[in-house]
Amino acid sequence: MEKSRPRILVTNDDGIHAPGIYALYEAMKEIGDPYVVAPDSERSAVGHAITLSDPLRVWEFERNGHFFGWAVNGTPADCVKLGVKAILNFQPDLVVSGINQGPNTALNVIYSGTVSAATEGTIMGIPSIAFSLTSFRRDDFSVATRFAKQLARTVLKHGLPPGTLLNVNIPALPASEIKGIRITRQGRGRYEEYFEKRTDPMNRVYYWLSGTKLFLDTEDDVDEVAISQHYISITPLQFDLTDYKMLEELKNWEIEF
Amino acid sequence: MEKSRPRILVTNDDGIHAPGIYALYEAMKEIGDPYVVAPDSERSAVGHAITLSDPLRVWEFERNGHFFGWAVNGTPADCVKLGVKAILNFQPDLVVSGINQGPNTALNVIYSGTVSAATEGTIMGIPSIAFSLTSFRRDDFSVATRFAKQLARTVLKHGLPPGTLLNVNIPALPASEIKGIRITRQGRGRYEEYFEKRTDPMNRVYYWLSGTKLFLDTEDDVDEVAISQHYISITPLQFDLTDYKMLEELKNWEIEF
Repeated sequence: MEKSRPRILVTNDDGIHAPGIYALYEAMKEIGDPYVVAPDSERSAVGHAITLSDPLRVWEFERNGHFFGWAVNGTPADCVKLGVKAILNFQPDLVVSGINQGPNTALNVIYSGTVSAATEGTIMGIPSIAFSLTSFRRDDFSVATRFAKQLARTVLKHGLPPGTLLNVNIPALPASEIKGIRITRQGRGRYEEYFEKRTDPMNRVYYWLSGTKLFLDTEDDVDEVAISQHYISITPLQFDLTDYKMLEELKNWEIEF
Repeated sequence: MEKSRPRILVTNDDGIHAPGIYALYEAMKEIGDPYVVAPDSERSAVGHAITLSDPLRVWEFERNGHFFGWAVNGTPADCVKLGVKAILNFQPDLVVSGINQGPNTALNVIYSGTVSAATEGTIMGIPSIAFSLTSFRRDDFSVATRFAKQLARTVLKHGLPPGTLLNVNIPALPASEIKGIRITRQGRGRYEEYFEKRTDPMNRVYYWLSGTKLFLDTEDDVDEVAISQHYISITPLQFDLTDYKMLEELKNWEIEF
């Protein structure tokens, strides 16, 4: 028997209109009281951006004729900060971000708004999880929400160490085809990028980013590899970016001033 | 005798108009051929954002009546990507970002546009360095540029391992007061944040992020501590965010699906 229902902040980077956040909200209702604070529009690939030079505004957002949550003209990280400090005015027991459509694995992690929201929760001392479904097309969130509930329950029970968040990627497959869960590390895969040069109707040049995914890892314990083998991938992340190996080496460099 | 002059991509997050990028450009001219590709306006605290949903545009920007560089309506990471792949069309020998006004130390590193530009250069396989002067007010870049030249020369000679960049913070002090150089790790210091709630002339509520810096480290080898002791801080960074300690612990959790 729980003393009280856990209070869960729900956010994402696809925007408060997205189907993924609705699925996550419905799942969290089964294990606690969810509070949605999410961007008013899509904010993908915003990295860990926060809004310093513009005012943030908030309005109430309805879904199916009922209050669903607060929409913010900011980034996912803004939503977590503003949600906790100015909207909820209490420290939630958990932050969940997603369910993102598309993987947040390998080097994409550093561009991910979904992950940045969970990072911000972690910085604020709240256990936090980022959830992504590894397909841009599939709108069936049933496997992802089932697992999100399980994992959220487990994290509410265990807690997470200060400074650690979980980055979860769920294959876009029917439950029967999922082989299990794998604890993974962040891969090195990245995009080989190029820019399409186009001309607008006023004959001005513009560029559009495009690219091809490079898979650079083959080991089973890498996030992308686990996904490709039909496993749910859980990667614990932290945000000390120090390269400790290079730190020792740099001490031997003769750098003058 | 060098075979040819090194080609150096110069960018920042304060915008192509900022005094810091001009100072860095002038410094790089003394050791190679600098090419400036920078945001058309300030893009601070953009994290590692890239622009996916808007077209990127480029125009030529003058300073003192001469061509200075290319201005881009994007983030620092966009500038590096677009600079290499669509403007320069060659792989530069070095990417330098800055000179930022204000420190990029401790947890601020994950929000930093200055650092994200150097990260993007590193991802593209180019040795990259982020430079920050630890004051928002002081416009004297002479110490910072003198050191930037030294370090750029050293990095051009040594190279950097794949996946490693250097994050450099220079105290805003006269050269005579700088005690030396320290190789450091990223600190844990962060902001204790709050939002100022205000009302606009049309009586609508908006919020403005504010905060107080928390210094959470005392060890000499931490970036912020080195700066406070009047040392130039060099932190090697990498972008595998995996929490390897937690990875082992998570394997003992019983997570069901």
